[in-house]
Amino acid sequence: DVAKDVDESLVEKFLSEVDNIQIQENLRELTKVPHMATTAGDEQTVKFMLKRWQDPESGLDQAWREEYMVYLSFPDPKNPNSVTVVTPSDAVLHTVREKEKPYTADQEDPEVVQPYAAYSPAGHPRGKLVYANQGKPSDYELLNRTIDLNGTIAITRYGGAGRAAKAINAAPYGVIGVLVYTDPLDINDGLMSDINETYPHSWYLPPSGVERGSFKNHYGDMLTPYLAAKEETYRIPAKNVTGIPPIPIQPIGFEDAYILICKLGGEAAPSEWQGSFNCTYNLGGPGFKHTSTFNNSDVKLDIFNYEEIKSSANVMGVIRGSVEPDRYVIYGNHRDSWVHGAIDPSSGTSVMLELSRVLGKMVKQGKWRPRRSIIFGSWGAEEFGLIGSAEYTEQYFTKLSERTVAYINVDIAVFANATLRASGMPSVQNVIFTAAKQVNAPGLDSMSVYDNWIQYANKTSPAHGTIPRMGYLSGAGSDYAAFVHYLGITSMDISYTYDRSKTNARIYPAYHTAYDTFDYASKFIDPGFTSHQAIGRTAGNILIRLADSLVLPLNCSDYAESLEEYLKTATDLYQHQLKAKNISMEPLKHAVASFRRAASHLDKVIHSSDLANETPLKVRMINDQLMLLDRAFLNPLAFPDKYGYRHVIWASSSAGQPTFPGLADAYDKAESSGQSNDWDKVHYHLSVLSQAIDGAAHMLVDVI
Amino acid sequence: DVAKDVDESLVEKFLSEVDNIQIQENLRELTKVPHMATTAGDEQTVKFMLKRWQDPESGLDQAWREEYMVYLSFPDPKNPNSVTVVTPSDAVLHTVREKEKPYTADQEDPEVVQPYAAYSPAGHPRGKLVYANQGKPSDYELLNRTIDLNGTIAITRYGGAGRAAKAINAAPYGVIGVLVYTDPLDINDGLMSDINETYPHSWYLPPSGVERGSFKNHYGDMLTPYLAAKEETYRIPAKNVTGIPPIPIQPIGFEDAYILICKLGGEAAPSEWQGSFNCTYNLGGPGFKHTSTFNNSDVKLDIFNYEEIKSSANVMGVIRGSVEPDRYVIYGNHRDSWVHGAIDPSSGTSVMLELSRVLGKMVKQGKWRPRRSIIFGSWGAEEFGLIGSAEYTEQYFTKLSERTVAYINVDIAVFANATLRASGMPSVQNVIFTAAKQVNAPGLDSMSVYDNWIQYANKTSPAHGTIPRMGYLSGAGSDYAAFVHYLGITSMDISYTYDRSKTNARIYPAYHTAYDTFDYASKFIDPGFTSHQAIGRTAGNILIRLADSLVLPLNCSDYAESLEEYLKTATDLYQHQLKAKNISMEPLKHAVASFRRAASHLDKVIHSSDLANETPLKVRMINDQLMLLDRAFLNPLAFPDKYGYRHVIWASSSAGQPTFPGLADAYDKAESSGQSNDWDKVHYHLSVLSQAIDGAAHMLVDVI
Ligand SMILES: [Ca+2]
Ligand SMILES: [Ca+2]
Ligand SMILES: [Zn+2]
Ligand SMILES: [Zn+2]
Ligand SMILES: [Zn+2]
Ligand SMILES: [Zn+2]
Repeated sequence: DVAKDVDESLVEKFLSEVDNIQIQENLRELTKVPHMATTAGDEQTVKFMLKRWQDPESGLDQAWREEYMVYLSFPDPKNPNSVTVVTPSDAVLHTVREKEKPYTADQEDPEVVQPYAAYSPAGHPRGKLVYANQGKPSDYELLNRTIDLNGTIAITRYGGAGRAAKAINAAPYGVIGVLVYTDPLDINDGLMSDINETYPHSWYLPPSGVERGSFKNHYGDMLTPYLAAKEETYRIPAKNVTGIPPIPIQPIGFEDAYILICKLGGEAAPSEWQGSFNCTYNLGGPGFKHTSTFNNSDVKLDIFNYEEIKSSANVMGVIRGSVEPDRYVIYGNHRDSWVHGAIDPSSGTSVMLELSRVLGKMVKQGKWRPRRSIIFGSWGAEEFGLIGSAEYTEQYFTKLSERTVAYINVDIAVFANATLRASGMPSVQNVIFTAAKQVNAPGLDSMSVYDNWIQYANKTSPAHGTIPRMGYLSGAGSDYAAFVHYLGITSMDISYTYDRSKTNARIYPAYHTAYDTFDYASKFIDPGFTSHQAIGRTAGNILIRLADSLVLPLNCSDYAESLEEYLKTATDLYQHQLKAKNISMEPLKHAVASFRRAASHLDKVIHSSDLANETPLKVRMINDQLMLLDRAFLNPLAFPDKYGYRHVIWASSSAGQPTFPGLADAYDKAESSGQSNDWDKVHYHLSVLSQAIDGAAHMLVDVI
Repeated sequence: DVAKDVDESLVEKFLSEVDNIQIQENLRELTKVPHMATTAGDEQTVKFMLKRWQDPESGLDQAWREEYMVYLSFPDPKNPNSVTVVTPSDAVLHTVREKEKPYTADQEDPEVVQPYAAYSPAGHPRGKLVYANQGKPSDYELLNRTIDLNGTIAITRYGGAGRAAKAINAAPYGVIGVLVYTDPLDINDGLMSDINETYPHSWYLPPSGVERGSFKNHYGDMLTPYLAAKEETYRIPAKNVTGIPPIPIQPIGFEDAYILICKLGGEAAPSEWQGSFNCTYNLGGPGFKHTSTFNNSDVKLDIFNYEEIKSSANVMGVIRGSVEPDRYVIYGNHRDSWVHGAIDPSSGTSVMLELSRVLGKMVKQGKWRPRRSIIFGSWGAEEFGLIGSAEYTEQYFTKLSERTVAYINVDIAVFANATLRASGMPSVQNVIFTAAKQVNAPGLDSMSVYDNWIQYANKTSPAHGTIPRMGYLSGAGSDYAAFVHYLGITSMDISYTYDRSKTNARIYPAYHTAYDTFDYASKFIDPGFTSHQAIGRTAGNILIRLADSLVLPLNCSDYAESLEEYLKTATDLYQHQLKAKNISMEPLKHAVASFRRAASHLDKVIHSSDLANETPLKVRMINDQLMLLDRAFLNPLAFPDKYGYRHVIWASSSAGQPTFPGLADAYDKAESSGQSNDWDKVHYHLSVLSQAIDGAAHMLVDVI
């Protein structure tokens, strides 16, 4: 039936069938072995997904694997990376722990990869140690004022700067190697002892835990920018790759970092650089205190990482749409982990499998078929930089651009069990709210996810009053990046998360370590799996609404509200100075006003029409206006220096202002350089931005 | 009625109503005064178009003007450009004619612009004259072997190289000024005398006729690349503009060129350089023969051109679609001329006005409303480099990309009255053929335009046998450029043209001169205006079919045939050598084969379905597959050195091979440089190309 809308009784049925125990058992299966991208464990999860989705009982119409040949980086099991403290006569005074300390059998699995920094070059730097705080440009600059950094090794803590940046920022000062560790201050609310404070006694990170990660700035396969990484695809020479560490870098646990840092000589570091070790963090002499046992010793890194092009698989599953098969709602999550990845990403995969089970069952029973097609994506090699999802968007660029209604990303489904967290384009706020109101908050039978959420994060909207506060997808933190920034597809990212009054942890403490296991997840993150269930219900509810609504539940007036907020900030911050430079903000103001007018008008059309009795092409016309709105914000020339960023509203920004990212960055640069050429770039970006917003407004106004 | 298809009786009615006398009277009105872009005459034509289209009787739903502030170049009426022959003691021996010789009152209109090269810099170079043939790189190279070109003035003839290129190619050799003229060999089949051979005795160019033109390489407004040229839009500094003459250049008539060239000293030019003057074309001493009256004299250019940002208008008219208003068929033609522009462009404008009159009348009478929206565009400032149409596509990029079914360009409607000429994407071949079969060839009551056409230009198609030969839109010769190359919209360009057995003229001889008048057009190009009528009928028939067909009359299998031809040529020319360089053509072959398979399958779906009884969304799905096919061929990174070219199949190419343009050019470059870096670029482009064709195939296969 072409005029059918969402069936609320079906939504209810879906909600009632999403089962926490099923999710728990999915997770148990997915986390049996480590499943780092392209390993045997990864292949095991590919087979598991395919078995589930290709099962004729699954109700899915099709499922398949799709391979890309991608550029990865691994440590060498035969030559483990090592970090040692060595005397001038080469005596080894200390050796950093090679692998994490076992507390359960999981850590003893031989497939647990040694902690390493993916894309760190191999090398054997040896030098005096310095403490460089978070490895930000300002950190090295400060250090460089009093210390000659040439030939030194810098130890940094996670946070404040991207992983690769800690090494990229260091190299210009002559630093030859970098260590990075997780300070208990940043992850454990200061706690350090595995006798009674850390896992397995709590969710906190044990002293030997090490965060692994991809040390690269650009998302996607680095050898095949903007091209799907197939066998014969042209690859840029590896030596031309940018955005990776130019010098060796290695992550270590705070157990070892404590030993190194508390022996450092030199002046005391600034108070903001101090972590929670029970010693003063000194800058380094460079090197250790003369009074310490490490007096006069060097720190030596022996890094044996190697790069390899390997085949990584996405697993895809489809439920074909009944009325509009050529409109896609895509739901995705990566499959690869660093170790067992119980939370990252298998919590999300467990939820996706449960969601596809319940929806597929309704299809199989003949009770339902979505109006639009649903595509599930289990992405490969996300941990190495969102590679599987990015390659997918490169391969199917036009098809996905023209047909995708929305992308839902659920990577880590549950960080913690306090409240919903949602980020996305402003147009999806409304459908997230609708869904969240229909789901019970985990452990709170009489309160909805929505009512719980609004207690933890809220804001005042001119149109809606007090509402939960959503985030924006302005970075590249998970697989939504290529959908948002490269394709311009309306996207969202959903999870359950912390009570910030109870913890300051940067992220759940076992993140990217060998402790992110089923045992950890089921004991400390979500006992009973009810938060997983709540995410499954919320995300699935959203998915059904996007797939089944007669008129797409995307609200363009909420988009207008965000643009107006951005404009207000931009005007407050920049207008005065821009005027002095003879650069007018009027076109931007006009564009935002046009967008608002067009959005109000389209909303009126939607609400005043009896669309169920209209021709299906009239409804399609409106839906295309809503679907394609975000596409108008794309400009492949807007960010010449930012790989993969084309969406002028949500690109990443270093300016840290809640406003148009390219304008903020260009303004900051011009303000600091004072060069007229940089003010020209501000003017240029203003024109790009105004034209994009105008173009989006044109998509919303009457089609002729 | 959502299932209605083209009404053939309506097509017949349309054909019968297209009136040659109406077209003639449109032309008479449009050519009353010169209407160079942004002049008072141009404004007069804007008002005329608006009056016609805004008339409530017109049947159009809306018409308006749309202004852009664009960068133009003009001679200074108070300081006319001059070209003189001067002795060492500054005596003037000869002055080139300032304006064309009058034969009718038209040439005496004070608004006739002096012949000039738009975007030539002002300047006063003086030096010895040399003859540089067509001003190609190879021409200057040859000349440079025996002559020191430093400080010389080069005289070149039109043809062989772009206008601006003649000066751009010259400057590196130290040439300081360039003249360009039209040789009677190239335009007049050798005839020269205005006593009895040239206009007003025939269509041939009188001796004083001068081809004006835009001397710039990139299309669109040069100060606002990829941005609509609005008041406050960022403009690049004029000094950063590239693709324009770095040295002064001026066009002159062959009356003066004869005097200069036949007095040149030095060696005889090669035989291919000889034109049809009754003297030997020498290279120049440099300078004139010692035996001539110009012995020892210089040629001096005094160029007073200036650049100015002026407001140029497009005039737009719309007939709103009844069933699919959000699908556009765009029909366009520029409005601005160099002088009276009877043929270029007013022949096309006269046809467009007649077409809109007949269609609008059917709407007004309630007999018809197109299924899809029809947009008429009367573009401004085309003569300065396709500016109005390019700015339009920049301003409405996403809207036009997402909604435009096809673009029909009719610039010069009638070059001559022998046969139809049509260029376009291969997918439009079929609808052009269908229309051409239904229209009588002018002057041949018993023969169709199609049957006449096939006698003048034909080829053998594997699928269709002998058919008329269409061209491709691989250049930027008229306003289709931005639609094809920037937006990737399925486009065509249609006109009536020469019997090539009767003339070798580069183009109709009065092109861009003061002789392109109503008198000229009605006496020598199309007496009785029946070729205009045939173009109006053919183009209108195509327009109706694109607007009214239930299934879009775009044939993807014909596209496959062209890709296969291109692939065969590429394989023949490049495969052997590419193999030696370890570059595989297999991905390209697979992509073309996928495209063919997908096209065959979609054709089968179309022909085996009872689409009139299908849901409108099923039909729309197929139509979107057809409409968006060309969009998949776009890649904004495919041609980093070619401004505005994104369509990987139809971009311009210097290699001159009937195959994929980027591949051919990259291959030629690598073959000639031998550098591995250039072979890498071949491999890169092959990947870009294969991915684009694959992407297009993905648009055609089943949507899920
Ligand atoms: Ca890639
Ligand atoms: Ca422009
Ligand atoms: Zn993740
Ligand atoms: Zn992760
Ligand atoms: Zn023209
Ligand atoms: Zn022209």
